[in-house]
Amino acid sequence: MSVSGSAHVRVRYAETDQMGVVYHGNYFAWFEVGRVELLRQTGWNYKTLEAEGIGLPVIEATCQYRHPARYDDELEIRTVGRMASAVRVEFTYELVRMADARVLATARTLHVPVTRDGRPCRLPGTLREIFA
Amino acid sequence: MSVSGSAHVRVRYAETDQMGVVYHGNYFAWFEVGRVELLRQTGWNYKTLEAEGIGLPVIEATCQYRHPARYDDELEIRTVGRMASAVRVEFTYELVRMADARVLATARTLHVPVTRDGRPCRLPGTLREIFA
Amino acid sequence: MSVSGSAHVRVRYAETDQMGVVYHGNYFAWFEVGRVELLRQTGWNYKTLEAEGIGLPVIEATCQYRHPARYDDELEIRTVGRMASAVRVEFTYELVRMADARVLATARTLHVPVTRDGRPCRLPGTLREIFA
Amino acid sequence: MSVSGSAHVRVRYAETDQMGVVYHGNYFAWFEVGRVELLRQTGWNYKTLEAEGIGLPVIEATCQYRHPARYDDELEIRTVGRMASAVRVEFTYELVRMADARVLATARTLHVPVTRDGRPCRLPGTLREIFA
Repeated sequence: MSVSGSAHVRVRYAETDQMGVVYHGNYFAWFEVGRVELLRQTGWNYKTLEAEGIGLPVIEATCQYRHPARYDDELEIRTVGRMASAVRVEFTYELVRMADARVLATARTLHVPVTRDGRPCRLPGTLREIFA
Repeated sequence: MSVSGSAHVRVRYAETDQMGVVYHGNYFAWFEVGRVELLRQTGWNYKTLEAEGIGLPVIEATCQYRHPARYDDELEIRTVGRMASAVRVEFTYELVRMADARVLATARTLHVPVTRDGRPCRLPGTLREIFA
Repeated sequence: MSVSGSAHVRVRYAETDQMGVVYHGNYFAWFEVGRVELLRQTGWNYKTLEAEGIGLPVIEATCQYRHPARYDDELEIRTVGRMASAVRVEFTYELVRMADARVLATARTLHVPVTRDGRPCRLPGTLREIFA
Repeated sequence: MSVSGSAHVRVRYAETDQMGVVYHGNYFAWFEVGRVELLRQTGWNYKTLEAEGIGLPVIEATCQYRHPARYDDELEIRTVGRMASAVRVEFTYELVRMADARVLATARTLHVPVTRDGRPCRLPGTLREIFA
């Protein structure tokens, strides 16, 4: 099982580089928007999670860049989240340009829930069920 | 009185935008390098300062952009720090391209020392003397 | 005379720093969003402007930080644009947190229209009238 | 065969996030520093390559985050480059914290040489030999 969500961003000038396209490292902030909005759509909130003492750092990130995102493009981030194991959450992403529905990139991030002092922990039960 | 220091950066591709020059917002991270290295040259360390519970957030920042910084440029950041008042530290910056000694930008940031809970406080005495 | 507009952003995790607030240099990308959306609301488009060979680089930027923006905050950027002279466009900004209508920052950027080879030029007539 | 190089960065405050560590997306700018310096150590220069009309965009990027990089850490980026095929260049990276020689992250980026209009092309012969 898994849960999916959708979020939107418009490419900022700040995100481009002198190749005239978005710098590859900047895509990861969009994927963060994708998983944060996915979480919000489940009724949860990453901010609340942190306030409760649980962080969700990235332990692995991968992106395939198929077609460059360009300045002012409107993009949809389609995100799917699931428990990859009892103590791993996996998100996968499709980045779609809205003007022509082209998939510009696909990506995956792997996360481990940790307490405030950095020790691995379990997600709250309701979240585990959502991502089950 | 005041104290001055020098630091160096090389322009990263990530810092450019599609105009083919460095994005204006990215200069502020270099000025941060400038004041951190100035502090280090006095024998202090911003990391230590934070560990002792004192932050130095920016309350005002200004930059004049005279000539664009470009990818791979080697830049010198000349920084001067001084107490602007009992509870204000001011840093001024000259950003110089090393290849031709041209001043690309001048800037100024104003800071207020704060405790961990965000209340204004005094700098440690030895720092106040350095910036006096 | 002048023209004003409104845009919205939500603070990304990527934009925070270890002080637990948004890094001061990152506000400038939001002000860029503000002026781009203002331009769009006039029927123009910064992308089109560039395609026609005109850039609008920043020659001066100033920001007063009054209260820190925090992760997940929803912010409104209220932007006003006007011709500061025949060859200077000025934008001023108010950054407002929507939850409590508090003004977190005020800012100003000054721009000079340039051709593709970097020479100062005039804005297209209809834009000059809008910003007159 | 392959060619290897070493570069150094110090973590900037701008690169941290409110988890108190470096934001995962920011590592990719360091890997860029790694491959640019590797190229420079071979006698080439990415800037020159671009001036000759050849770009080297990233088509795939992966990073494993083992231990967090923190503010003010001095880091070594150990980079290895090689031709992954006639039209693919692969770089692999080890990010090492100098204070304790700990490997904080390992990464890999895959690149395709392209002409100015975005068509895949071959690298200059001397570069192909270096990366052979």
